[in-house]
Amino acid sequence: MSTTSFRSEHDLLGSLPVPKDAYYGIQTLRAMHNFNLSGVPLSHYPDFVSALAMVKQAAADANHQLGYLSEEKHAAITDACHKIIQGHHHDQFIVDMIQGGAGTSTNMNANEVIANLALEHMGKEKGEYEFLHPNNDVNMAQSTNDAYPTAIRVGLMLGHHELLLSLDRLIKAFEQKGDEFSGVLKMGRTQLQDAVPMTLGQEFKAFAHNLSEDLGRFRTLAQDLFCLVNLGGTAIGTGINADPRYQGLAVERLAVISGHPIKPAPNLIEATYDMGAFVLFSGMLKRTATKLSKICNDLRLLSSGPRTGINEINLPARQPGSSIMPGKVNPVIPEAVNMVAFDVIGNDLALTMAAEAGQLQLNVMEPLVAWKMFDSIRLLRRAMDMLREHCIEGITANEQHCRELMERSIGLVTALNPYIGYENSSRIAKQALATGRSVLELVREECLLEEEMLLDILKPEHMIAPRLVPLKG
Amino acid sequence: MSTTSFRSEHDLLGSLPVPKDAYYGIQTLRAMHNFNLSGVPLSHYPDFVSALAMVKQAAADANHQLGYLSEEKHAAITDACHKIIQGHHHDQFIVDMIQGGAGTSTNMNANEVIANLALEHMGKEKGEYEFLHPNNDVNMAQSTNDAYPTAIRVGLMLGHHELLLSLDRLIKAFEQKGDEFSGVLKMGRTQLQDAVPMTLGQEFKAFAHNLSEDLGRFRTLAQDLFCLVNLGGTAIGTGINADPRYQGLAVERLAVISGHPIKPAPNLIEATYDMGAFVLFSGMLKRTATKLSKICNDLRLLSSGPRTGINEINLPARQPGSSIMPGKVNPVIPEAVNMVAFDVIGNDLALTMAAEAGQLQLNVMEPLVAWKMFDSIRLLRRAMDMLREHCIEGITANEQHCRELMERSIGLVTALNPYIGYENSSRIAKQALATGRSVLELVREECLLEEEMLLDILKPEHMIAPRLVPLKG
Amino acid sequence: MSTTSFRSEHDLLGSLPVPKDAYYGIQTLRAMHNFNLSGVPLSHYPDFVSALAMVKQAAADANHQLGYLSEEKHAAITDACHKIIQGHHHDQFIVDMIQGGAGTSTNMNANEVIANLALEHMGKEKGEYEFLHPNNDVNMAQSTNDAYPTAIRVGLMLGHHELLLSLDRLIKAFEQKGDEFSGVLKMGRTQLQDAVPMTLGQEFKAFAHNLSEDLGRFRTLAQDLFCLVNLGGTAIGTGINADPRYQGLAVERLAVISGHPIKPAPNLIEATYDMGAFVLFSGMLKRTATKLSKICNDLRLLSSGPRTGINEINLPARQPGSSIMPGKVNPVIPEAVNMVAFDVIGNDLALTMAAEAGQLQLNVMEPLVAWKMFDSIRLLRRAMDMLREHCIEGITANEQHCRELMERSIGLVTALNPYIGYENSSRIAKQALATGRSVLELVREECLLEEEMLLDILKPEHMIAPRLVPLKG
Amino acid sequence: MSTTSFRSEHDLLGSLPVPKDAYYGIQTLRAMHNFNLSGVPLSHYPDFVSALAMVKQAAADANHQLGYLSEEKHAAITDACHKIIQGHHHDQFIVDMIQGGAGTSTNMNANEVIANLALEHMGKEKGEYEFLHPNNDVNMAQSTNDAYPTAIRVGLMLGHHELLLSLDRLIKAFEQKGDEFSGVLKMGRTQLQDAVPMTLGQEFKAFAHNLSEDLGRFRTLAQDLFCLVNLGGTAIGTGINADPRYQGLAVERLAVISGHPIKPAPNLIEATYDMGAFVLFSGMLKRTATKLSKICNDLRLLSSGPRTGINEINLPARQPGSSIMPGKVNPVIPEAVNMVAFDVIGNDLALTMAAEAGQLQLNVMEPLVAWKMFDSIRLLRRAMDMLREHCIEGITANEQHCRELMERSIGLVTALNPYIGYENSSRIAKQALATGRSVLELVREECLLEEEMLLDILKPEHMIAPRLVPLKG
Repeated sequence: MSTTSFRSEHDLLGSLPVPKDAYYGIQTLRAMHNFNLSGVPLSHYPDFVSALAMVKQAAADANHQLGYLSEEKHAAITDACHKIIQGHHHDQFIVDMIQGGAGTSTNMNANEVIANLALEHMGKEKGEYEFLHPNNDVNMAQSTNDAYPTAIRVGLMLGHHELLLSLDRLIKAFEQKGDEFSGVLKMGRTQLQDAVPMTLGQEFKAFAHNLSEDLGRFRTLAQDLFCLVNLGGTAIGTGINADPRYQGLAVERLAVISGHPIKPAPNLIEATYDMGAFVLFSGMLKRTATKLSKICNDLRLLSSGPRTGINEINLPARQPGSSIMPGKVNPVIPEAVNMVAFDVIGNDLALTMAAEAGQLQLNVMEPLVAWKMFDSIRLLRRAMDMLREHCIEGITANEQHCRELMERSIGLVTALNPYIGYENSSRIAKQALATGRSVLELVREECLLEEEMLLDILKPEHMIAPRLVPLKG
Repeated sequence: MSTTSFRSEHDLLGSLPVPKDAYYGIQTLRAMHNFNLSGVPLSHYPDFVSALAMVKQAAADANHQLGYLSEEKHAAITDACHKIIQGHHHDQFIVDMIQGGAGTSTNMNANEVIANLALEHMGKEKGEYEFLHPNNDVNMAQSTNDAYPTAIRVGLMLGHHELLLSLDRLIKAFEQKGDEFSGVLKMGRTQLQDAVPMTLGQEFKAFAHNLSEDLGRFRTLAQDLFCLVNLGGTAIGTGINADPRYQGLAVERLAVISGHPIKPAPNLIEATYDMGAFVLFSGMLKRTATKLSKICNDLRLLSSGPRTGINEINLPARQPGSSIMPGKVNPVIPEAVNMVAFDVIGNDLALTMAAEAGQLQLNVMEPLVAWKMFDSIRLLRRAMDMLREHCIEGITANEQHCRELMERSIGLVTALNPYIGYENSSRIAKQALATGRSVLELVREECLLEEEMLLDILKPEHMIAPRLVPLKG
Repeated sequence: MSTTSFRSEHDLLGSLPVPKDAYYGIQTLRAMHNFNLSGVPLSHYPDFVSALAMVKQAAADANHQLGYLSEEKHAAITDACHKIIQGHHHDQFIVDMIQGGAGTSTNMNANEVIANLALEHMGKEKGEYEFLHPNNDVNMAQSTNDAYPTAIRVGLMLGHHELLLSLDRLIKAFEQKGDEFSGVLKMGRTQLQDAVPMTLGQEFKAFAHNLSEDLGRFRTLAQDLFCLVNLGGTAIGTGINADPRYQGLAVERLAVISGHPIKPAPNLIEATYDMGAFVLFSGMLKRTATKLSKICNDLRLLSSGPRTGINEINLPARQPGSSIMPGKVNPVIPEAVNMVAFDVIGNDLALTMAAEAGQLQLNVMEPLVAWKMFDSIRLLRRAMDMLREHCIEGITANEQHCRELMERSIGLVTALNPYIGYENSSRIAKQALATGRSVLELVREECLLEEEMLLDILKPEHMIAPRLVPLKG
Repeated sequence: MSTTSFRSEHDLLGSLPVPKDAYYGIQTLRAMHNFNLSGVPLSHYPDFVSALAMVKQAAADANHQLGYLSEEKHAAITDACHKIIQGHHHDQFIVDMIQGGAGTSTNMNANEVIANLALEHMGKEKGEYEFLHPNNDVNMAQSTNDAYPTAIRVGLMLGHHELLLSLDRLIKAFEQKGDEFSGVLKMGRTQLQDAVPMTLGQEFKAFAHNLSEDLGRFRTLAQDLFCLVNLGGTAIGTGINADPRYQGLAVERLAVISGHPIKPAPNLIEATYDMGAFVLFSGMLKRTATKLSKICNDLRLLSSGPRTGINEINLPARQPGSSIMPGKVNPVIPEAVNMVAFDVIGNDLALTMAAEAGQLQLNVMEPLVAWKMFDSIRLLRRAMDMLREHCIEGITANEQHCRELMERSIGLVTALNPYIGYENSSRIAKQALATGRSVLELVREECLLEEEMLLDILKPEHMIAPRLVPLKG
């Protein structure tokens, strides 16, 4: 490599050659040298990158308004932040999601990229920090300890809408199938044993309801948890060296820029180190993950077979199954959702340990917390889209088979119980099990109920809801 | 043992001798034979036992009102439930908290104890079920699948008040110490490195605030999550074989009996199997656990020493330390809180796996979920009481040492930064580190600030909050 | 209570009344006051209590031999330790398994009980420590920091034999069923979809093999991990204030007393704080837990039905199922094993967090580590006994149903593939699925294979192992 | 894009356009459409990609030798596999690490890339599968269910050497520091409280020993666990449709090709589904993670300050600390190791849940297991290299400060205990604490020991090991 393709930058520890066309600078480079760990860079999470630019913009606005940042610098920083928020130059956000220093490297990556973009806007060369400085100007009145936690929260709010959208669409897909299958009578199962009749529609409606509870909760939770920020607290939340008017102005600007109702946290000392918002939100993501996993386990059970399993429903074929076994089609989509759920639960644990490891006025493990939050949210969103598009929407029911299984089931006797009595029921159940014959057959054979009565009891609408039966003497 | 000390009971699987004075019956005994696992019986959690009796009472009230349960039986069951709710006969609830059967053994333990107490009230012998039957009468119109999940929720509501009380008292103890230490100036630390000044009062107030967020959240969360019950759903939530009027009456009665705003769940199929309420509440308990653990880690750090650690505060001595090391006193109370926190986090995992393992119309792992919920709540409550009583209330500050550490700290230069400039600050910092001298000493030696100005800057109230400083040119 | 029922004891913090007939003393009492947490006392784990006495005995032997402990005191301590090792007086070990102080309370509970038993042996009153002292004599040359971790390891070795025994018996039960079911031909399933034929015997033999790998590993692992102890390291492993000959003697005696090949750890500083042995062993227990859980999931699947599930095997009925659903029998035993597995995995997490939380020369979280180790081992042992006795030994096969499912399965075509070609196979598979007819029927109808050939291919011994088929052109 | 840049491929589900220059084919493309989840492709783990090629090569060798694969095809496949093993064309392995189908997509990605490379070698166009087919030829005699688990094991063996190398180097770095600091006397700390003297060298040697136990264990564990493979078991381990000679030949070839002592698993049914090897190895990685985390916590504690912490050692400065706090240098490297440890523990949980979720003859969650294994190993290796290079090797000791802390410590009295007696010791300790004076000062003032004696006791070599002291009367 020729020397002309580098510029030299220096900091407290000395100087390093930085690629000439890089918008990032020496401190980003140091972080690259220090932290080659996960292989996952900041740019993997565009919302986070945008949020960093929003925080820098808000700070610059406040500093400008208070007279600390010149008109020219403010314009240049504004231009730079705007570009990043628009999705440009994200490839310059290269530091690893796992990093020591409580987010300093992430903050400096943002400061340096914005500074060099701003310099370019001012007609200067990259690295001419005497005209506009990553620390003195872009990071003015901020500490990593307030700018970074604030950016994480804002970043999570930015992507929140899409999470809700994916969840909402999935719920609707389940509801639609619930309607479609409302006439499909089948056996319910408890403990994997035949229980009592229900409809396949009820089963799918319950999936929808199960997830709709989460949708409702997410709607309020994210705003509750992420809209209180510690911007303005500087190093440890005391706001040392900050202009007393700064916090109010900066947070107000951030609300406008982000479009979310961002507000100052009531106790900045606590807000500087507390990870509670993330722990609870991740706990909520974990709940959604367990629900999705349970639902997918059910889908795999219900579609098991086709001949030696339950085979009540068919999942759409997404790819050839085994080359060795002709005609095999596997439930690959629900399986992948199960794995995503396990990964989200693993993420929750890593995040929890990071949250617990905070010490005194800071939690230095926050970069791991941030990574796991962004990762779990994206995984769940993608998994829900995949599940809906590639699986739920294409599910069909084997209506005839569902009904046959029900009619052959011993559990049917439960529905007859109030009419033929417990003693008869037990005897019929035992006899059916021993002979392999059906309950209906035996009831008919013994003439325990008139045919009309029997047909009335077995009407779907009568078996799947409470019904007034004659009082037992 | 003589034969006269047993009575014989029988069920579908045969007959067994039951201790003559036992209120429980054969099905409880079978569960005892089957499940000798954790060694922790139902009676370990009195709220759960009481809640079971409340559910049985509510069902009996509804059945009586609908004409299915005679006046005499209702009176006898009422008497039995009342005794249990009052705390009597809890030693008869002997089945292991870990049990197969999705809670059937727990439900039957309750049914049998109540039946035999009721029989006693009626002047009958224990086991004379022809007069009042555990299944037919006490369990009338119920399935384990609706009675058991309902009892868990009610049980959690019963103990909730005490959890809040313990948390509230702990918060107040931190607040009081925050007031007491509001004049104690000290260094804040980030990444375990000297940062900038704060007061010990601010530190303790932040602990209080940290926990008060959880208090607020618990207040609404428990009610949101646990007051919707599936009583009346019978086997799988379809309400099969139930009188259509039963659900409304039973739930209404349960609200009255428990004193909590219990309501019917909107989708009973889903409510029969869903564990989401527990997953989220446990996630919240986990959050409180991580906060308590972080706080206790801080207390152990701040009291470390006395000579080779930080030694800013003194924890009350609770027991002699080492026999081999004279005079050693250890932070045993915070240590125990850390362990409780880890246990609660482990409980959350076990519960999460149990929640994920639900299948089709039921989650058979619910007994583990119930156990872990009751256990975590009690552990946290006891740990918070212990922490407050045996530690927080007795903490004293080493005010002089706090101030000395601050005055000797390099970090003090941050407070001087706006007045002496970054260049001077850096030079002074470097010199102080190299020579071992204090920042103040060097600033005074170089006459960088007039003494009056210096004293003004270093006034506690000036260092621990934002302050308007002259604009830098 | 009258004052005469107490004796007064005092320590560095003052004096307390101790119940007159208690063998424990004031420090145990302080621990009781401090730590009311899990409600699980030391006595819950008899091996641990015995191990504590063994360590005290070994130390006393060494001290006696070196001339530090008089003949009389040695005899008295020996008598006391002997009684405890024999299982007496375990009810005196009352401190909570969760305790601060890195095990000091456990160690002192042992010291005090042994001292008072020894005093009794010497004809003295309890509490007359001037004749024989819990610290000076029973704890002589020890620190909690070496005696306690040593006792945990010894305690785990004591119970290890039973764990292996339970595992071995369970393996044999699976093997026996494997033999019994060796002629039962059935379909294998991958991804819950019909795959290719196998025997039920192969399935149960695989369960046996799966667990036998763990048996082999446990056999060497426990000894590797737990037989190196830090006894003699005193406070931090430097052996300060210890006689240089003491360590060798004490460890040698401990090996003799315990009957296990106990040896000194090579680095006592490290051995004082390291929890690695427990983390790995718990990881191994977790592995066994996941295997047992998988096996039990399989048992529940294979026994699902009886009519609307797989129904290949029958689990023995252990207790009546639902009162509302006549004839229902549930797989309660495997379900309970699943829950135990989840609990063990939760324990592993709590233990891991405790292990990670060690600081500098000690891990104060060791009491939690100890608890979780003893608990997981006992849970697994009990679960394996339960599974074998109450489930595996009574399993029967539905041989006819197994064969019918196989013969109706599309997957059978895989076995015919090498003979009728992939094209024919695929066509037959598709046709079978569409018409609901069986593969065999269609093959026969199309005369694709001679009946003799067909019967030969479908012989069990030909379908369940590799077989030389004619080379494809 | 013009239509000429695509070729058309088809499978059972229809046809799709595949980029013309792609070596992968339609089934890989289907996986890409189905699974857009983690964003981490197969190519992220080169060892895994190479191992897939090794398995394919071994199978081709066996098939060729048995006469099923022609000379020409064998040569072409050999050329293709060789290129991949050499590290070429890894960018063609594009499927997501999270995928349904139990690894089918990964297996097909390998089959297709190898087939097209082989076709190129044969002078054919990509996609001309009539000349050499991904399934019929490359996948001949294999099922995903045996090829995929085998490739994972081989891949883990390939990277194992580097893990050991990184660990070994880190141990040596600690040992070297142990030697360097062998003369630095300091206070040991238990429960963060002053305990008794030791050397900094002992502390670092203990770190080395702590990790060397893991090195020893890894050396045998990987081979034990990963060298038994199920290649040849085909679909479910029965070896259906396989030539009876195939397994032996293929596994033998795989041993030669991989350079590792690969052998057939003793029970192929079990080996097809069992995840036990991964669970245990991950448990071992978790153990190493907890050790590294504990060590890094210690390094952060020991380097805390510089003025308000312990400050016994200095970590090398790796990047500027705070912009707001001049002169601040943070322990960024150990912090990053802590986060890696938490991530590895989270991975272990996800993997454990995946292992538990196996059903019947297969564990469909194996892709997640594979991902977490490869990920944890790489994270730990990189973290250990980082820790050694960027931290351990540059650590320096503040020898003077270490000694001063020790001399001022109350704990010193423990060393004097055997000489001045417990009573004097306790009094001196109390007095020192009350007055702030040093133990030595007080002992000298009271002339409790002659100066010569005192100096002798306080010699480093006398305080840091057992020493024969006069018997107490």
